[in-house]
Amino acid sequence: MSETGDMGLVVVGAAGRMGQTLIRAIHSMPGARVAGAVERRDSPHLGKDAGELAGIGIINVPIVDDPLPAFAKADGVLDFTAPKASVEFAGYAAQARIVHVIGTTGCTADDDAKIAAAARHATIVKSGNMSLGVNLLAVLVEQAARALDAEDFDIEILEMHHKHKVDAPSGTALLLGEAAAKGREIALKDNSARVRDGHTGVRKTGTIGFATLRGGSVVGEHSVILAGTGERITLAHQAEDRAIFARGAVKAARWARGKKPGLYSMRDVLGLS
Amino acid sequence: MSETGDMGLVVVGAAGRMGQTLIRAIHSMPGARVAGAVERRDSPHLGKDAGELAGIGIINVPIVDDPLPAFAKADGVLDFTAPKASVEFAGYAAQARIVHVIGTTGCTADDDAKIAAAARHATIVKSGNMSLGVNLLAVLVEQAARALDAEDFDIEILEMHHKHKVDAPSGTALLLGEAAAKGREIALKDNSARVRDGHTGVRKTGTIGFATLRGGSVVGEHSVILAGTGERITLAHQAEDRAIFARGAVKAARWARGKKPGLYSMRDVLGLS
Amino acid sequence: MSETGDMGLVVVGAAGRMGQTLIRAIHSMPGARVAGAVERRDSPHLGKDAGELAGIGIINVPIVDDPLPAFAKADGVLDFTAPKASVEFAGYAAQARIVHVIGTTGCTADDDAKIAAAARHATIVKSGNMSLGVNLLAVLVEQAARALDAEDFDIEILEMHHKHKVDAPSGTALLLGEAAAKGREIALKDNSARVRDGHTGVRKTGTIGFATLRGGSVVGEHSVILAGTGERITLAHQAEDRAIFARGAVKAARWARGKKPGLYSMRDVLGLS
Amino acid sequence: MSETGDMGLVVVGAAGRMGQTLIRAIHSMPGARVAGAVERRDSPHLGKDAGELAGIGIINVPIVDDPLPAFAKADGVLDFTAPKASVEFAGYAAQARIVHVIGTTGCTADDDAKIAAAARHATIVKSGNMSLGVNLLAVLVEQAARALDAEDFDIEILEMHHKHKVDAPSGTALLLGEAAAKGREIALKDNSARVRDGHTGVRKTGTIGFATLRGGSVVGEHSVILAGTGERITLAHQAEDRAIFARGAVKAARWARGKKPGLYSMRDVLGLS
Repeated sequence: MSETGDMGLVVVGAAGRMGQTLIRAIHSMPGARVAGAVERRDSPHLGKDAGELAGIGIINVPIVDDPLPAFAKADGVLDFTAPKASVEFAGYAAQARIVHVIGTTGCTADDDAKIAAAARHATIVKSGNMSLGVNLLAVLVEQAARALDAEDFDIEILEMHHKHKVDAPSGTALLLGEAAAKGREIALKDNSARVRDGHTGVRKTGTIGFATLRGGSVVGEHSVILAGTGERITLAHQAEDRAIFARGAVKAARWARGKKPGLYSMRDVLGLS
Repeated sequence: MSETGDMGLVVVGAAGRMGQTLIRAIHSMPGARVAGAVERRDSPHLGKDAGELAGIGIINVPIVDDPLPAFAKADGVLDFTAPKASVEFAGYAAQARIVHVIGTTGCTADDDAKIAAAARHATIVKSGNMSLGVNLLAVLVEQAARALDAEDFDIEILEMHHKHKVDAPSGTALLLGEAAAKGREIALKDNSARVRDGHTGVRKTGTIGFATLRGGSVVGEHSVILAGTGERITLAHQAEDRAIFARGAVKAARWARGKKPGLYSMRDVLGLS
Repeated sequence: MSETGDMGLVVVGAAGRMGQTLIRAIHSMPGARVAGAVERRDSPHLGKDAGELAGIGIINVPIVDDPLPAFAKADGVLDFTAPKASVEFAGYAAQARIVHVIGTTGCTADDDAKIAAAARHATIVKSGNMSLGVNLLAVLVEQAARALDAEDFDIEILEMHHKHKVDAPSGTALLLGEAAAKGREIALKDNSARVRDGHTGVRKTGTIGFATLRGGSVVGEHSVILAGTGERITLAHQAEDRAIFARGAVKAARWARGKKPGLYSMRDVLGLS
Repeated sequence: MSETGDMGLVVVGAAGRMGQTLIRAIHSMPGARVAGAVERRDSPHLGKDAGELAGIGIINVPIVDDPLPAFAKADGVLDFTAPKASVEFAGYAAQARIVHVIGTTGCTADDDAKIAAAARHATIVKSGNMSLGVNLLAVLVEQAARALDAEDFDIEILEMHHKHKVDAPSGTALLLGEAAAKGREIALKDNSARVRDGHTGVRKTGTIGFATLRGGSVVGEHSVILAGTGERITLAHQAEDRAIFARGAVKAARWARGKKPGLYSMRDVLGLS
């Protein structure tokens, strides 16, 4: 918990695909080290070495099921798990007074309220997408949505992810939708067209449409389309490798170290807000 | 009703956007002439000259509301109207023993059955999309779907149209879905994922997914994506100008002239079946 | 030359494809009227009515070959011709003290210097692309190029136009390249990769690459790609209809009316600079 | 050299990025094993274990610089090196009477002639791209090019690869160009537009255009565009992971085992020819 030296980071969900990517990212980046690895009580990987499982050789960090002792001796926790788990981890992080970086998507308003409450004591960075590119894109989308009038330009958001993804639209698609809504000075939830099937009627002016593709091993692709009469602008991001999210999470943790408690976003980390 | 000389074609829905495009296409293409123009009883355009309304100058074809006399002295009818109207026109075309080219989308199974019944007496060409490019695309999609195993490659169909379109997915998207399903030897209706919102679970192997975008003045864009592990194939069509559909309809009418009654598709017209 | 009432606009190259589009745009927009129509001495269209040629009916503006009398009784001139002609027209516009809107592409540094000289007396708006969308895109490209480091993100510019286009890259591609170069604080001409064929060696860090596609009837598509390790941002514009450029030119002329002499850009017109 | 049991495969260029990917692919696939690993005389990796270097742990195959003894005790060699090296390896493979899978690009006509000569004694599979998707795409491109007339549809080929690639257009772009040329029954080399810069004149009917993008870490993307009047077809492939090429090479080697000497392509392997 010192503020000098390498930052000790715990990975929760350490045996999953993203967890392993986080282990590798911490291992490969300067200024950080793997301080702990946590999995669910029923994980078949408990006791294994987190580094060996992630394919980088033994790092002497066994995977454990109790987060509290792990958090107690760390400076931060990286968390791309599930809403219920993240809410619980936020409480533990607040208790341990450490940084909590949350990349989990699909949180309900209630989950978000609990995380905000935890942020009174923990320094939390939460973002639907940890990549540099997506967060820059959100800034550009907000500007474009502000510059182009809703009467003239319709906004549509398209995303594609791999076949294993279980929710739609993606957290990043919603993040981009919020950016567009902010540019237009409207509330996203009252102005979304989330489903189109059968007789839809004409497009309602001012709404923000969503469409979702799923297939193969696509890491994550998002396009925001502003379609006017006779012309169209498309602002898009392609993630080729989920390591970009892991590296962004490590970057966020290092930025948050020593900051006072509060709920921060990736834009804060990148100085884009 | 002679089988020589220019083919006399009636346009139904002649005052609408597509109707006017059909009038212009017939006027500009060799081997065809505008023989009649029909609109609904309550159209404000009844009595006007169909050519003048379409911006090509007076052609001495007034817009009328009674299809029967118009059909009686024509060789064919071009119809991009609405399901109920097309079913009715198919009956009249059968009575008049003339060619009926149907580009109408959104027909129910019941509508399609009635059109098939009319095709015992009329020579009907019906297609969800009258363009050369889309029909070639459908052939390629069928082949790709056959070559790439459902275990390995997920099929997704994306379409974008202008903000005035009232149904989803487009007739062309469904046509491409049918082509993919045929390649896979499955029934589309039992294997479609038409909506994704909220918790969807993982993608079901073997399904064909649909996604819809609406905005601006987009004439029509369709992509069929075959997404595998580590690679993706995309087969796409962009229509820049709805005149391609009108020209295709005229081409279909000329092809059908003199053919025996039956229900034909655009693939038959193009020799791709 | 009054500054009230409809603005009288001369179209040079009035019988060409873009000239006709300009005639139609002026005719359809409030606050402007066609005041003259000029073509080359050897044009077969001299003497014809400019409106009738453009398909909007007689407007009582015959196509003439002498620009001076036409300019003398107008408030502005819309010019999408060729570099040599535009330089000459700029001189005449300066003489007549009227607004000169130049959409001509392919000007040399020498041409540009002559146009700048004419701008001491004429109010000139010159842009490689007159659309709202492209000019907004240029602003976003500049920002993205500034935010993403040249060591980490490579910038590539891709354009596609119809088969009749005779130069490459397009004026708009170069305009976007200049925007990227400005964001990076480099000179485009010293940092462009305009051709890649055969053994190219590895990509040189910090360069801006160009690629050109030609085919069919594509009105104009441009993409600026910022490609990093593991992620990519694409900022793109599609023109579906060249009327957007004509409408933008009329908008530029109306904006420039009454402004003091000088060389303005479309960003000035749109308040984006 | 038996034709039963796991196929013993030598990787040449075993310490490079593609070489390591090949080692991993052989290791992970049934029916094949790493039988040798060859590098250049001046490689700093000579003597290291090929598996350990590739991140899969020790496999007891040291990297050596002499190909002959390695080839003598193997059933095949996988080669994604450079033209001169591949020509040399083809000679050794012919001598050893083993399968030679060549994924090397950039070969001159002279190189290809030498490889064809070696194929009198060796069973060689050579392809500019070893992926299933690209080879299917080539079949579809050939068909589309045949179906759509050169007068009506212009063919353009676009590719993007990472910033480290040293030649242009890619071997795969040329492979797709050959497929299009075959469909059109023309010779690619007499009908290519490889460079566009400055005054190009209008597009020459019947040519096949190429455009190249380079940047970031893009594994490989190819689009074949058939652009007509008012519509466009795009047939595209995206490789997300270069492991697809390595798996394809192993698949090719297993297919070629026991086949009589000759020069085969990936289409032969996939039964698409």
